[in-house]
Amino acid sequence: MRAVIIAVGDELITGATLDTNSAELASHLTALGIAVTRHLTVGDDAEPIADAIGAAAAEADLVLVTGGLGPTLDDLSRQGLAQAMGVELVEDPRQIARIAAFFTALGREMKPSNRTQALIPAGADAIDNDWGTAPGIAARIGAARIFVLPGPPQEMRAVFGERVEPLLVTDGAIVRRLLQTYGAGESDVGERIADLMDRRANPTVGTTVREGVITVRITARDPDPDAARRAADRTAREVRRRLGEMVFGEDDQTLPGVIGDALRGAGATVAVAESCTGGLVGKLLTDPPGASQWFVGGTVAYSNEVKTDHLGVPAEALATGGAVSEPVARALAEGARQRFGADWGIGVTGIAGPTGGTADKPVGLVYIAIASNQGADVRRHTFIGPRDRIRSRASMTALNLLRLALRAAGKTTAGRHQA
Amino acid sequence: MRAVIIAVGDELITGATLDTNSAELASHLTALGIAVTRHLTVGDDAEPIADAIGAAAAEADLVLVTGGLGPTLDDLSRQGLAQAMGVELVEDPRQIARIAAFFTALGREMKPSNRTQALIPAGADAIDNDWGTAPGIAARIGAARIFVLPGPPQEMRAVFGERVEPLLVTDGAIVRRLLQTYGAGESDVGERIADLMDRRANPTVGTTVREGVITVRITARDPDPDAARRAADRTAREVRRRLGEMVFGEDDQTLPGVIGDALRGAGATVAVAESCTGGLVGKLLTDPPGASQWFVGGTVAYSNEVKTDHLGVPAEALATGGAVSEPVARALAEGARQRFGADWGIGVTGIAGPTGGTADKPVGLVYIAIASNQGADVRRHTFIGPRDRIRSRASMTALNLLRLALRAAGKTTAGRHQA
Repeated sequence: MRAVIIAVGDELITGATLDTNSAELASHLTALGIAVTRHLTVGDDAEPIADAIGAAAAEADLVLVTGGLGPTLDDLSRQGLAQAMGVELVEDPRQIARIAAFFTALGREMKPSNRTQALIPAGADAIDNDWGTAPGIAARIGAARIFVLPGPPQEMRAVFGERVEPLLVTDGAIVRRLLQTYGAGESDVGERIADLMDRRANPTVGTTVREGVITVRITARDPDPDAARRAADRTAREVRRRLGEMVFGEDDQTLPGVIGDALRGAGATVAVAESCTGGLVGKLLTDPPGASQWFVGGTVAYSNEVKTDHLGVPAEALATGGAVSEPVARALAEGARQRFGADWGIGVTGIAGPTGGTADKPVGLVYIAIASNQGADVRRHTFIGPRDRIRSRASMTALNLLRLALRAAGKTTAGRHQA
Repeated sequence: MRAVIIAVGDELITGATLDTNSAELASHLTALGIAVTRHLTVGDDAEPIADAIGAAAAEADLVLVTGGLGPTLDDLSRQGLAQAMGVELVEDPRQIARIAAFFTALGREMKPSNRTQALIPAGADAIDNDWGTAPGIAARIGAARIFVLPGPPQEMRAVFGERVEPLLVTDGAIVRRLLQTYGAGESDVGERIADLMDRRANPTVGTTVREGVITVRITARDPDPDAARRAADRTAREVRRRLGEMVFGEDDQTLPGVIGDALRGAGATVAVAESCTGGLVGKLLTDPPGASQWFVGGTVAYSNEVKTDHLGVPAEALATGGAVSEPVARALAEGARQRFGADWGIGVTGIAGPTGGTADKPVGLVYIAIASNQGADVRRHTFIGPRDRIRSRASMTALNLLRLALRAAGKTTAGRHQA
């Protein structure tokens, strides 16, 4: 099965907006074993839209179009599709009612222009959109199936995932598992699971990376939904076995979210003392809603005076080993824990660059300490890249070390309970 | 003049990597007054690359291709172009020497596979690449000019900006000015300069938005470089006049960078006490290198106890008006200033959501205070959107308020000096 993806919009063609829909759809189709042969972006004119859809339908089995379904005069994907099909647009009364209901639910007035969103090419079907006003469209040209989806990424994602993707697996079910990992490079992860990553395999296994988090994506297809689920789970278990404690979560879990859940589950709290990361560790720890249940507070200790006055770092440690050193990281973590009255303390000190490095202490050197009532554990890391990457990786690594410490502490506790 | 942009790569076609090159090139071409009619993405196969280049050359005056110039077997843009031109590939001895020199400069061994990067279609010209091993290629098919650029975004950007863009302005020079603004929506900015934003005008004026920062992009073309510069400066002055103090910088200046420069220039320092933003204000203030010259430190005061114990917020203020209130924001800013011994203090307290809002104090309500030796000024803002957007906008707005306060203080000082 071959697919072409078309994105519509003047804001895309002029580069004012970055098209993320096409890549997102491509990765879903690839996971389903559908070969994407081309992506195409065209502007808001009916003629090029019709040409693009017509040409794509002639060469592919599946054509996905995003965008151009808004209520304004320059939203012309409906017209383009009708033209490619050689039919007229007709108003779908059911969609008029849905759009009206959508506005009522928002407590807003439906504008006359929104009526145009209920226009569907004759012979095509509207696809219900519960997440916005624009219905999608399902059509056929010759043997090719065409789906037109709304352009806003959240709506596109929801309509595709809920309404279109299930139709693409004619012979059964798709089951997807995501495993979230931290602590290795993408090529390291790739090497450990290389034999599982054959594109023609079922389940398919792929990786993507963002801010150091590597997501392993497992997609199983099978006529029998239960068999698909079992195959996905089996592969997920195998990937977990190979990647070990690198795996921190599943599906849309995040590192801050997993830490928040672990702290809340243990009834524990954390505080932070950070230097080179400038507040980013605190920011990440408070990303999840409800963070006040586990996050007490933090100190951004940029100057040496703040380190001694606010956190009790011994002036001697600063004088002897310098601010970027193992004892200072330890004192920061312990200071944060004590001064904020938290169960756990994080201390981070390093050289984010681009200047300030020496042969002994290069740019990218960061000491990260995790303190608990069992003492403090300090790790030395050297991150590479520009300043913002060093700060981001240092912060995420601090969170990951806290995660591993919480995990180890949980095991000890569990062990004690068993004993 | 009409252009087609082609991106090459299996990693793009499968959605594993997001293509940012096409949008970046499109925005440059649009600014030059060149109409981009299509973007196209194809995989790493010579046939579709040749077909795409051939079709694009038949319909456009200019074809830009990115990617597929690496040293491995699946880098086939050279072959695809040669096929579209109906010629053979020939080795360019000058490029062999350049590639060898590039490896020598890095202190690394040149691999035999890198020799393939010096293959250029007969009749085409290599484009020197000082930023990587892959030369670009300039060619013609009929009346169309074809440029093939390396795929890594930094290399693509450098080769395009230094070697290709100058060739596209056959009748003179291009001068670009960027104005960075904060404090209004994109549509507000657009309304104030709507008459300048005609796509066919010279200079062209466009806007892009990222994290609340609206960038106004001015591009002037003129046979005479001085005349282009004068036209760009004239339009930049007019945009500045209309947008007033919203404009915080030019070209690649950032809000944290401008604040850092202003503080360093005044020999002043800043400290921060933040609640709902969790450390993000501190993180932003320490984004620029050398931040230790103006940033002393910060407290992330998530719990009420931290607000009173670490920053001296009166327990009475917390009890009477609640943690999210004008007096608490003021006390946070003053507490930060005093406890860290800084000239300026920032205080932020608000409700980032998604829960915790009331009719009186909805999700998104944030009080931001700026304290100096002249007292503290508190603003009430209501931001909309999800939790991360509210935290990001609150933090950037805090920086912007500090910028405006520094500006006003600078004017007062300047006034005094004059008196």
